Amino acid sequence: MDHFLDWRDFAGVQAEKFFKATLWNGEHLMVGLNCLEPGQSQAVHAHQAADKFYLVLAGQGNFTIGDASRNAEMGTLVIAPAGIAHGVKNSGAERLSLLVAIAPAMK
Amino acid sequence: MDHFLDWRDFAGVQAEKFFKATLWNGEHLMVGLNCLEPGQSQAVHAHQAADKFYLVLAGQGNFTIGDASRNAEMGTLVIAPAGIAHGVKNSGAERLSLLVAIAPAMK
Repeated sequence: MDHFLDWRDFAGVQAEKFFKATLWNGEHLMVGLNCLEPGQSQAVHAHQAADKFYLVLAGQGNFTIGDASRNAEMGTLVIAPAGIAHGVKNSGAERLSLLVAIAPAMK
Repeated sequence: MDHFLDWRDFAGVQAEKFFKATLWNGEHLMVGLNCLEPGQSQAVHAHQAADKFYLVLAGQGNFTIGDASRNAEMGTLVIAPAGIAHGVKNSGAERLSLLVAIAPAMK
C-alpha cells in the first residue's frame, strides 16, 4: 500500500448524491474524503458503535451534531461521538471537502 | 463537550520535546495535534495494536513509515497501520503542524 496520499488526488463530484472516497480502511481506523457540491447534504444519521470526526479541508458547511447546528470552515474539527446524530450541508458557494475518520473501521 | 474545535486554537510550542495536544479522546478514536518546531522530531516508534494517520496541516516534514522516508507538506495523509514503525522530523523552516488520529483510543 501507499502510505502517503494527497487528499486532493481523491476529490470528485457526484451529481445525485455527495461524493465519497475511501483513503484507507485499516484494521481499526477508516479515513475517507467527502465532497459536497453547493447545496448537497449528508442526511443526519448516527453510528451507534463508532466514533467519527470531520475535518473541514476546504469550503463551508453547516453541521448538525446532536441538537446543535453550526457553520464551519477550513481548519474546524467536528466531532461526532458514537450514538450522536450528525449531518452536514454545503452552505457555501464552492465545493465542501471533508476528511472523515471513523473507528472502529467498517468492513 | 464542544463538538466544534479549531486546531489552530490548540497549537503550541515546547522547547525540550515537540508539542502535543489532545483534541478529543473518544471511546474508540483519539485525535490530537502535534507541533514540531524546525529541527524537532518524533522518534520512530510503533503502536502494535493501533492504527494511526497523520494529516499535514502546515509546514513540511520528513516522515518514516516502515522502510520508506519521504517529505510531505500540507494536504498529505501519512498512514501508519498497526505494527508499522513511524516517525517524523520537521524538515522545513517553519512550524510543522500535524493532525493525528489513533484507534483504538488510548486510555
